[in-house]
Amino acid sequence: MSAQTTILKARWLLPMSPGSQVLNEHALVIQGERIAAILPWAQAAQQFPDAATVELGEHVLIPGLINAHTHSAMSLLRGVADDVPLMDWLNNHIWPLEKKWVSEDWTYQGSLLSACEALRGGVTYLNDMYFFPTAMARAALDSGLRAGVSINVIDFPTGYAANAGEYISKGLEAYEQYKGEKLLDWTSAPHAPYTVSDETFIQLRDLRDRLGLQMHCHIHETQFEVDESVKQHGMRPLERLNKLGLLDSRMMAVHMVHLNEAEIAMLGQQGVHVVHNPNSNMKLASGVCPVTALEAAGVNTVLGTDGAASNNRQDMFGEIRAAALLAKGVTQNSTTVSARTALEMATLRAAKAMGREADLGSLEVGKLADVVAVSLAALECRPVYNPEAQLVYVAGREHVSDVWVGGKQLLKNRLPTQLDQAAVLDRIEAIVAQMKAQR
Amino acid sequence: MSAQTTILKARWLLPMSPGSQVLNEHALVIQGERIAAILPWAQAAQQFPDAATVELGEHVLIPGLINAHTHSAMSLLRGVADDVPLMDWLNNHIWPLEKKWVSEDWTYQGSLLSACEALRGGVTYLNDMYFFPTAMARAALDSGLRAGVSINVIDFPTGYAANAGEYISKGLEAYEQYKGEKLLDWTSAPHAPYTVSDETFIQLRDLRDRLGLQMHCHIHETQFEVDESVKQHGMRPLERLNKLGLLDSRMMAVHMVHLNEAEIAMLGQQGVHVVHNPNSNMKLASGVCPVTALEAAGVNTVLGTDGAASNNRQDMFGEIRAAALLAKGVTQNSTTVSARTALEMATLRAAKAMGREADLGSLEVGKLADVVAVSLAALECRPVYNPEAQLVYVAGREHVSDVWVGGKQLLKNRLPTQLDQAAVLDRIEAIVAQMKAQR
Repeated sequence: MSAQTTILKARWLLPMSPGSQVLNEHALVIQGERIAAILPWAQAAQQFPDAATVELGEHVLIPGLINAHTHSAMSLLRGVADDVPLMDWLNNHIWPLEKKWVSEDWTYQGSLLSACEALRGGVTYLNDMYFFPTAMARAALDSGLRAGVSINVIDFPTGYAANAGEYISKGLEAYEQYKGEKLLDWTSAPHAPYTVSDETFIQLRDLRDRLGLQMHCHIHETQFEVDESVKQHGMRPLERLNKLGLLDSRMMAVHMVHLNEAEIAMLGQQGVHVVHNPNSNMKLASGVCPVTALEAAGVNTVLGTDGAASNNRQDMFGEIRAAALLAKGVTQNSTTVSARTALEMATLRAAKAMGREADLGSLEVGKLADVVAVSLAALECRPVYNPEAQLVYVAGREHVSDVWVGGKQLLKNRLPTQLDQAAVLDRIEAIVAQMKAQR
Repeated sequence: MSAQTTILKARWLLPMSPGSQVLNEHALVIQGERIAAILPWAQAAQQFPDAATVELGEHVLIPGLINAHTHSAMSLLRGVADDVPLMDWLNNHIWPLEKKWVSEDWTYQGSLLSACEALRGGVTYLNDMYFFPTAMARAALDSGLRAGVSINVIDFPTGYAANAGEYISKGLEAYEQYKGEKLLDWTSAPHAPYTVSDETFIQLRDLRDRLGLQMHCHIHETQFEVDESVKQHGMRPLERLNKLGLLDSRMMAVHMVHLNEAEIAMLGQQGVHVVHNPNSNMKLASGVCPVTALEAAGVNTVLGTDGAASNNRQDMFGEIRAAALLAKGVTQNSTTVSARTALEMATLRAAKAMGREADLGSLEVGKLADVVAVSLAALECRPVYNPEAQLVYVAGREHVSDVWVGGKQLLKNRLPTQLDQAAVLDRIEAIVAQMKAQR
């Protein structure tokens, strides 16, 4: 029993459970895949005398960060087209490249790259949306990361599937193949209102209900999307989705940049989760999600990076900081989206959006031991007045030293333990060389 | 002669001179303190056979970044008060702490910490505004960094000076003491329209003219500042400063968040430089500087971090990225503030704002060899389609490996060569421990 016990000793521990504060000189005790105790250093040594101890120094222990929206494989398209408008970017760059290149292996290799990047940045859970869900499933299992894998549909043919029926049947096949895996959750994932028909939305709603999944969908990303829906359907996308019975606590609505007051109130009343992607929305000039108003309406707002083609850093520290800063800048209210709130958006709130708050999102006894150690020892992180705010406004992903998922150490002194980082990179470079040669 | 010659070999070189593009497999040759040549690898080896060669691999060489506005010593107050409004932050936190603690030594130690942080982040020039200018001068000389040192005035008594006359005489004394130092420039630096009288502005204008200095002043940071000026002076601060003859190409106007169309046009016509501090303005909820409109009016817009108490990362990579993203987000125009423009704002344009474009801001033969090597080898920086955009949207200050200022290597594999980083930190921790004990 004691062989399975590990004590993590860091100067600070930030449980992120409701109402919790920073704990000084507390240890986190892992037994098997779960957190067995959180207690002062001296008590830990007494109560678990045979445990292995990891001495971490000037670190903060935090719950593993949850990236609630990304397209992991798109790391292969990182920086392929910058400073262009969303529809140009999609129609003339991303979709043609995807049509030509995306395959099971391409998706797997890109997803592995993102898994490594995630680990090195303190992210323990990637909620992914992409083609070839088996590729993301394999990348998660091979890297040891948790993932939300998508049963995804876009109502046009791609190298992955020809039509909605094929997308769904392939997604279900992947689900059946991997459904016992503890590291994986599954989402019912229509791409967006402007690329998915009512009929397909209904199929995915029924699938969601039958399998008990969360739904994962891009909604109200651009003003253009909203305007086109009014022309084509006589109503805004959210109204359309509401009529289809999709807007409740099973929905993770991604982007949500263009919202009116009635919509914001409705989202709060109906328990819809909003996934805010501040850097992607700025980069693609979609606008700014009204997070402060969503907060006032009681909406559970969480954070995602979006894919590496639109937010070239898959960096949740960057999203946490951007969420805290951007909301203040656009509302001219310096108390909105506090450091604490921004951290919750990437931890406990995100676990709730995924339907996993019983197991994930905070450091509490009995929860899974998804733990990140962030060092505040570097010169640029000193002095430390308030470790919680320091994580948001000062520290970056480069200060993450060690990561555990389900009690297993996956990053040690910034190096992945389970993956051969150099081999991942070699395969990426070979794929990209081929893509560049044929451009 | 050849002993003084060094060849820097990196995969890419970004000269940042007007119209220049990324050069592949080019070497930068340093002789003494200046750039002697930029030419293909093979030619460099032929033409300078006796030179020492620094092999850098998957790096980009860029001009040293210029932080056009900071308060270096305030690194000692990093994170001392977050998530509070500007006037509360100033009146109840920053000014009382400064009144109690600021001294020559406190300022020197904090400035040294910022100098180390700057070097580790690819910043070779700090345009500083603070009390005890001799302390900043010493910190720059001891670290080997360039600095703009301020002859500063705030029209109320502090631990540094009792009244405008004393601020000016102390500033002039510092100027006289250090005026021969090549690493130092000097600015005439009234704190802000709301803290400086007309009489003092006139004295600082005359001093600027007499000594041939740039002027460095916070202007239009908050709506409150603008409204109060209308009440007190019957006009907006910019109108007041214009009547005082201060708005021309000698003025570096910092923040400039709240501007009307006529003001923007006037700034362009009169050649005023605007120092945009995107992260500080967001964090203090001042608002968002209208950079896209300033660009359209031909204003030379450059970037600064502001002090570490309001932008807890003294990180110019962060400001470059924020400038590029924020302008897109608030204008919903994805082509505004391109990656290239954002990089110019921290290099060539900033050199122009400081009046130093003949010597600094780009990698060109004859200019001073202020050079930064940024590695794009890390997993999170791969693949590389466009090294220029990669520097803005992907790389961070943590990817800076080596820094030269005036041909002298000041950072080697992320370690300062001229300063004892551990000793700097020890002194900082001792000061902060004392401050915490007496809070």
